[in-house]
Amino acid sequence: MTRGFYIGRFQPYHDGHHHMVERIAGEVDELVLGIGSADDSHTRHNPFTAGERIMMITKALEDADLVIYPVPIEDLDRNAVWVSHVRSMSPAFDVAYSNNPLVVQLFSEAGVEVRQSPMFEREKLEGTEIRERMIDDEGWEELVPSAVVDIVDEIDGIERLQRVSDTDGAADDRPHRSNTADPE
Amino acid sequence: MTRGFYIGRFQPYHDGHHHMVERIAGEVDELVLGIGSADDSHTRHNPFTAGERIMMITKALEDADLVIYPVPIEDLDRNAVWVSHVRSMSPAFDVAYSNNPLVVQLFSEAGVEVRQSPMFEREKLEGTEIRERMIDDEGWEELVPSAVVDIVDEIDGIERLQRVSDTDGAADDRPHRSNTADPE
Amino acid sequence: MTRGFYIGRFQPYHDGHHHMVERIAGEVDELVLGIGSADDSHTRHNPFTAGERIMMITKALEDADLVIYPVPIEDLDRNAVWVSHVRSMSPAFDVAYSNNPLVVQLFSEAGVEVRQSPMFEREKLEGTEIRERMIDDEGWEELVPSAVVDIVDEIDGIERLQRVSDTDGAADDRPHRSNTADPE
Amino acid sequence: MTRGFYIGRFQPYHDGHHHMVERIAGEVDELVLGIGSADDSHTRHNPFTAGERIMMITKALEDADLVIYPVPIEDLDRNAVWVSHVRSMSPAFDVAYSNNPLVVQLFSEAGVEVRQSPMFEREKLEGTEIRERMIDDEGWEELVPSAVVDIVDEIDGIERLQRVSDTDGAADDRPHRSNTADPE
Amino acid sequence: MTRGFYIGRFQPYHDGHHHMVERIAGEVDELVLGIGSADDSHTRHNPFTAGERIMMITKALEDADLVIYPVPIEDLDRNAVWVSHVRSMSPAFDVAYSNNPLVVQLFSEAGVEVRQSPMFEREKLEGTEIRERMIDDEGWEELVPSAVVDIVDEIDGIERLQRVSDTDGAADDRPHRSNTADPE
Amino acid sequence: MTRGFYIGRFQPYHDGHHHMVERIAGEVDELVLGIGSADDSHTRHNPFTAGERIMMITKALEDADLVIYPVPIEDLDRNAVWVSHVRSMSPAFDVAYSNNPLVVQLFSEAGVEVRQSPMFEREKLEGTEIRERMIDDEGWEELVPSAVVDIVDEIDGIERLQRVSDTDGAADDRPHRSNTADPE
Repeated sequence: MTRGFYIGRFQPYHDGHHHMVERIAGEVDELVLGIGSADDSHTRHNPFTAGERIMMITKALEDADLVIYPVPIEDLDRNAVWVSHVRSMSPAFDVAYSNNPLVVQLFSEAGVEVRQSPMFEREKLEGTEIRERMIDDEGWEELVPSAVVDIVDEIDGIERLQRVSDTDGAADDRPHRSNTADPE
Repeated sequence: MTRGFYIGRFQPYHDGHHHMVERIAGEVDELVLGIGSADDSHTRHNPFTAGERIMMITKALEDADLVIYPVPIEDLDRNAVWVSHVRSMSPAFDVAYSNNPLVVQLFSEAGVEVRQSPMFEREKLEGTEIRERMIDDEGWEELVPSAVVDIVDEIDGIERLQRVSDTDGAADDRPHRSNTADPE
Repeated sequence: MTRGFYIGRFQPYHDGHHHMVERIAGEVDELVLGIGSADDSHTRHNPFTAGERIMMITKALEDADLVIYPVPIEDLDRNAVWVSHVRSMSPAFDVAYSNNPLVVQLFSEAGVEVRQSPMFEREKLEGTEIRERMIDDEGWEELVPSAVVDIVDEIDGIERLQRVSDTDGAADDRPHRSNTADPE
Repeated sequence: MTRGFYIGRFQPYHDGHHHMVERIAGEVDELVLGIGSADDSHTRHNPFTAGERIMMITKALEDADLVIYPVPIEDLDRNAVWVSHVRSMSPAFDVAYSNNPLVVQLFSEAGVEVRQSPMFEREKLEGTEIRERMIDDEGWEELVPSAVVDIVDEIDGIERLQRVSDTDGAADDRPHRSNTADPE
Repeated sequence: MTRGFYIGRFQPYHDGHHHMVERIAGEVDELVLGIGSADDSHTRHNPFTAGERIMMITKALEDADLVIYPVPIEDLDRNAVWVSHVRSMSPAFDVAYSNNPLVVQLFSEAGVEVRQSPMFEREKLEGTEIRERMIDDEGWEELVPSAVVDIVDEIDGIERLQRVSDTDGAADDRPHRSNTADPE
Repeated sequence: MTRGFYIGRFQPYHDGHHHMVERIAGEVDELVLGIGSADDSHTRHNPFTAGERIMMITKALEDADLVIYPVPIEDLDRNAVWVSHVRSMSPAFDVAYSNNPLVVQLFSEAGVEVRQSPMFEREKLEGTEIRERMIDDEGWEELVPSAVVDIVDEIDGIERLQRVSDTDGAADDRPHRSNTADPE
């Protein structure tokens, strides 16, 4: 039995992720999907909560021939302990999948096998693109699994993302440090 | 479709939890199992990591007639925001299950329906008892699902718990604040 | 113009505090009331939120001949920076009032004048006593200003304190580290 | 009796805020002024401490026909729990005032009534502008209540802001992560 | 070249530690002394700051035939990432010295060699004993290196420890969560 | 005896720092080198861990005629308590050295003497420049003490910095908030 680990923010879970999971499915029996920045939500970069992302992953993969574990990973903001943090939150895994250079470096320094793939490249570009399309509410549905469309609708996700991205009204104006809105 | 939420520390997942889940299964279609104090481990009170507890729950319930979501909930240590924290990490739920008075109070103040049950009482007593038996490595296997026995064996869980509980060698001696070992 | 600083947890604001404020009123023109452990609530030791404690202080002192500033002070849990933390959150003050030895030591090391008084002794004993009476819902009203009675009623404070103090149902059973309730 | 909540960073409290408060005063009997990013200070964006901002608000509004509560709100940096955090720190309120899209979204999701106003727009632009004028020490006094001028003078606020904004000497050079100065 | 790592809280650095270091000196060329709970001070359990403890260690060992590195280790309060935290703060080391069961377990799980010794036992008992003698200001000087006596005198350490340990005046009365003093 | 304090991030310790220390050596007997952002590593801005930076400083200065104390200072991210934090972690000092305007302002407000120097200017520019040269692995060795070259080699520091700086592969893609890599 082989178990893999695949980290992402999944904002939202989209076809790039989905193709990647299908490809990984040929190499492992079980797959942990680590949901990064699990404690962040309601921002342009991270619109959805960890719970909403668990639902997207679960519903999109319910017919997949693969045991999956969606696991929220809260930010710890310290690279030197990040691998230990991930390992304590996740079922044990044999191999990590990532094309991100920092993730590759951190896992490598910790002695974990990491597999990269040119296919990852495409996936990375899609996250921002899809969120931009969501803000315009145009053309995003075709880039995500249909289960994700349903969940976004159910939680009024488009309206939320449009509001938190409304920078016209938010200049110099954040209620707390790392976000985007706080009346002067 | 009804989804329930059941919070516990699951240190370890034992028969008391298991009977509770079976009972809840009669009332809901899906169940979130919130793994409390997910960021704590390697202590007498919380010996197992969140990842290890995810495995216990998943394997023990793999034949159950119920869709389950094991979700690590890191400590936030602020009662006033705890319900919001739980909700952001968990798939949306309709009803929470708990007999714990603080949990009941916090969910009630937040307007969430909570169901209690006399059966919970029994379960609560078992956690400490089982960990004590584990330290003696005697009689604990009969109080947990067999899948949990396998996982504890695989991770050398008994040895770990015995070591971190060895208070003879640990008096006044902790490497950090909330734990139990730090050479003077 | 002289401004004083008086730190307490005010759980709840009671007659001991009130007499103390009346006495301080003879020495200063304005008084900052620092509300300690502002981020803690819903526990036996700290049942009320910071906002509820602001209301108790404000209403109890609305006829006092003294300008008051109730200021929540969140826990920082580091004695060495505590005075700086307090000073950044509070309007500038000339003298601190406390009989607590640690508070006296920390302000003294930082070069702040501290005034102590035998009267403080009495006040200190009252907090625990009053919370115990609240749990029994008997005899607590006579130890707090009448404005505080009104506020506690309005927020169902007795019921909340009774529930979070129900240790029978809460043994070994906390949803997070520093509190008192989490199903095993 | 109606109580409102108005969140801002108040760096400094200026005429835009003041007009807003006057307008809100026609709709409520009491007003909580939540001081956002209370734990931040000594930066170009947040030059003044929470304590200094409490003084600005209190002195500028001491003749207002309105009961006010200035309440420091420390950053929690998690949008999903922000409303719960605010509510625990603040006296209970019936309506929140904000034009900030994120604040509006968060309060709306939590079921709190939010009132917006075109007038807010103007106020938002003024914070940055006033701080720029303060750095030049030219023309800022006419945009803030006279009580604020006195407080800024008393604490040598202009000199502080000029120093912490001196980016010529501070390039790539911060003593900690989110600020602006740390020798390489 | 061999470098060792020896963790302690060093409250204060005493003869038990000193003998241990002398013994380790026979096995390594360089020794890192990790100062645990570096961010705690002014409590009965942790009276001295990290900076004061660096001085004690440095002065007591200035004639030792051993290169030493005293390194403050702030509490992280998560056992699962503690070894990574220590390693990021410390010069690289080949072997760790500890008799503390939790420390031994954590280093072992991380694949770090740990050496134990019966001599450690004695040292562990001394910390509490010495602090008790300091509170009575009687007989503590003979249990610590003379350099430590000088430093404790210079910082008025006895008076500080006596004050923060004065539990008569501190019952139910702490300014923050993990300490010992906060007026009700 | 005079002891100075010199804060920097030392990413890496380079000739600009070294000349500064030589200059300070003429004014003090002992020097604390505060290692800022000690908890950050594996980023383009902060590639090296605190432990690695301790080694650079120690080895580069082992022949200096000056007692030195390299002390990691973790980020606290609150300017108002930063000086207290530094003081608790560091041996007591008489004078601080910095040309950074914020550091100068914070120490000044706290009543600590600060000495500035035009020489600092040059040093500040070198950090970024040297890290850029490291990424190209060209011409950096001549700007740092030879002991630092050895340490960077030993830890494969160039490869690490190259990887974590590879923004081509890291766009919109971070595993946690303040860093640079996280697969979408």
